[in-house]
Amino acid sequence: MSYSVSLSKLLEKIGAKEGSKLSVVSKGNTYTGRLMPHHDFSDGDVVVLKLSGGYNVGVRVYEDSVIKVLEQPVLSSKKGIVIERKEGLPNVVLISTGGTIASNADYRTGAVRPALSASELADMVPEAKEIVNISAKALLSIFSENMNVEHWQELAEAVAGEINNGADAVVILHGTDTMGYTAAALSFMLGNVPKPVVFVGAQRSPDRPSSDAPTNITAALRFCVKGGTAGVFVVMHDTLGDDSFAVHTGTRVRKMHTSRRDAFESINTVPVAVLNEKGEIRFAKEARPIASEKAAARTKMERSVILLQYYPGMDPSLFEGMMMKSKGIVISGTGLGHVSERMIPLIKKACDNGSVVVVTSQCLSGRTNLNVYDTGRDMLSAGAITVLDMLPETAYVKLMWALANSKNTEEAKRLMATPISEEMSDRRTVDV
Amino acid sequence: MSYSVSLSKLLEKIGAKEGSKLSVVSKGNTYTGRLMPHHDFSDGDVVVLKLSGGYNVGVRVYEDSVIKVLEQPVLSSKKGIVIERKEGLPNVVLISTGGTIASNADYRTGAVRPALSASELADMVPEAKEIVNISAKALLSIFSENMNVEHWQELAEAVAGEINNGADAVVILHGTDTMGYTAAALSFMLGNVPKPVVFVGAQRSPDRPSSDAPTNITAALRFCVKGGTAGVFVVMHDTLGDDSFAVHTGTRVRKMHTSRRDAFESINTVPVAVLNEKGEIRFAKEARPIASEKAAARTKMERSVILLQYYPGMDPSLFEGMMMKSKGIVISGTGLGHVSERMIPLIKKACDNGSVVVVTSQCLSGRTNLNVYDTGRDMLSAGAITVLDMLPETAYVKLMWALANSKNTEEAKRLMATPISEEMSDRRTVDV
Repeated sequence: MSYSVSLSKLLEKIGAKEGSKLSVVSKGNTYTGRLMPHHDFSDGDVVVLKLSGGYNVGVRVYEDSVIKVLEQPVLSSKKGIVIERKEGLPNVVLISTGGTIASNADYRTGAVRPALSASELADMVPEAKEIVNISAKALLSIFSENMNVEHWQELAEAVAGEINNGADAVVILHGTDTMGYTAAALSFMLGNVPKPVVFVGAQRSPDRPSSDAPTNITAALRFCVKGGTAGVFVVMHDTLGDDSFAVHTGTRVRKMHTSRRDAFESINTVPVAVLNEKGEIRFAKEARPIASEKAAARTKMERSVILLQYYPGMDPSLFEGMMMKSKGIVISGTGLGHVSERMIPLIKKACDNGSVVVVTSQCLSGRTNLNVYDTGRDMLSAGAITVLDMLPETAYVKLMWALANSKNTEEAKRLMATPISEEMSDRRTVDV
Repeated sequence: MSYSVSLSKLLEKIGAKEGSKLSVVSKGNTYTGRLMPHHDFSDGDVVVLKLSGGYNVGVRVYEDSVIKVLEQPVLSSKKGIVIERKEGLPNVVLISTGGTIASNADYRTGAVRPALSASELADMVPEAKEIVNISAKALLSIFSENMNVEHWQELAEAVAGEINNGADAVVILHGTDTMGYTAAALSFMLGNVPKPVVFVGAQRSPDRPSSDAPTNITAALRFCVKGGTAGVFVVMHDTLGDDSFAVHTGTRVRKMHTSRRDAFESINTVPVAVLNEKGEIRFAKEARPIASEKAAARTKMERSVILLQYYPGMDPSLFEGMMMKSKGIVISGTGLGHVSERMIPLIKKACDNGSVVVVTSQCLSGRTNLNVYDTGRDMLSAGAITVLDMLPETAYVKLMWALANSKNTEEAKRLMATPISEEMSDRRTVDV
């Protein structure tokens, strides 16, 4: 906050504060937008405005410039909002955890950070009140890159609690960055969850006109109401338009683009279903029906697990320390799951030390198979196991869960080789 | 080699040796195939035959079984082969490095390992002698997961040498597992190489009828002859059929499936060109024409570089040791390039220690951008740099090259932010 003295006084005099909608006339041009906090890198006579399109502009204020307040910011007062309940509509709980979907412009840096509550988001979706009774809960307010194992556990407990409390479905608002990891974690923790548990995110924050938040939430709610399907899913745009939404299996989905709204893809399988803009659902594979059982959360996780990508030139001596300290090691190898012959003695050492070493492929698509080439056979002899077409990220999450929910490493290996939540193909050709 | 005494004597008596084509009548069934070495896990009275389809079968030999030798193996005598040269045809040097494309069944384990020479491969491509004068060189015979920085250097020197010795093009036979990494390495090392340097591999070994080796080599040779384009490329199947072959830029290509013949994809760009089964070339973007300059190989590489994938729960204390020891660190972050706030102090510590930390995205597609969210801005403040839409693997290779070919880390960072071999988009919006 380092406006020049004169500009500072001027803003105070006209009552302009952060979030005020201003018009600024500067050198003949008029700029209209919400006042952002002063940027540390800007000069003292520059105001930063967020234009209605979502972009920020820095406007230099001269002696002859004219600044007017057009509108003052409306302060949110929606904590503990009471939403009218309609008889006969399904009860959906919206749990917000943060992420872009729950974000507004950040008034510290001009960037975006999580702030919106689930109830504010529910308000953005006009259809919501017609098709469901929504309760909105704010569990976390973090970007998903900061999601950690405890957050997964907290979230799984919350979801099971809501279901056992009468929720017909739970929609989780989550940052897109690690949504695949969290969806996999909840898939294992919640097992045969009897209701739909749907993750939804956005690639553009809700304060931008181009935001995909409302359409994604709408699609998620429609799937909860009309899908009749239990399980952990991710619902996101399937195309660049607003006309198609894919329902991905929680253990099979990966963010495959940094910014596109259709960034999420099912890998090594097809999406469970696709919804069009009218909410019509086309199922692509058989799905587990909704049931009336209670939900259970098996949230124990072994933290001592690492995920490593093999690359040419990888120096085993650099990785030895962490591998010998870790109870579980997931390697995304090349091709069918290979590493260099230099790495194999270290794999053997880790296995001999009691670690479980799970091999996946950095190709992402296709199955691993360590029986085709010498390298692979040597890796199997060293003690590594493969998990067919499981994603590296899903294998990492599952290995934490398998180690914590088994008596010994042999049982953990068997759990890894057994499909639990559609995370791998069902054919039992795993070369353990 | 542990046949039973009686079977061992029988095989010796009829002159059956490894590679002999046998017919074996066992319990009324007749099996015909090449004799494989005895498998350590097989019983002493079982012979392993490779059937004509490429599959191995273990056949139990009973007292009443009849074994006949149908054909003895032809021993290869093609070392130093002299191929008739035709006036006016371009000179293409085929350098073999190993990999599936140069592999036969492995007589130790029944798996596949590199054995064929480049000249044997040239012989598989009937068209070759009509369109080019081929010289075949065997440089290495390794699987590509064992490719190391020295191999890249040796290969770059060999390619430059062949070009300066009169080669109109160089085709490199390479394993598919790390072909993308090696192609990126040669792209940086050879800079504006004046001729086509084309990597080609196979997903099925040449002794299998379904091998993609001959068609891929044919497409590579055709592109060398008719493409008129200089640079480092990868030529592989573009579809599951034998009717379309993509020419990928060496720095932009990634193996995206463990086993399919169309596993290779250009990421964040389109292939340079596509060839159909007749060899007709359709260019999708402008390409650098062939020139008459000499080739130069700038092969210096800084070995102290690591590639790490960020994942939720990543424990900075486990990675601190290797990060403080490494001069270059490439992180494939989530989404736009993020890591958790727990990792950021470690990035700062590594940067303060003189390391270059380069951020890419595990999404693979799309651009990194650390200016959108708080996390990213904090990463930039810590000293990390981003490289737009460069692949993590390409960034790893380039960082080794940039650190070795610059005076200091600042120059290395500038090199990282400057497109050298089409490895990143050209817009200078890199947030260094």
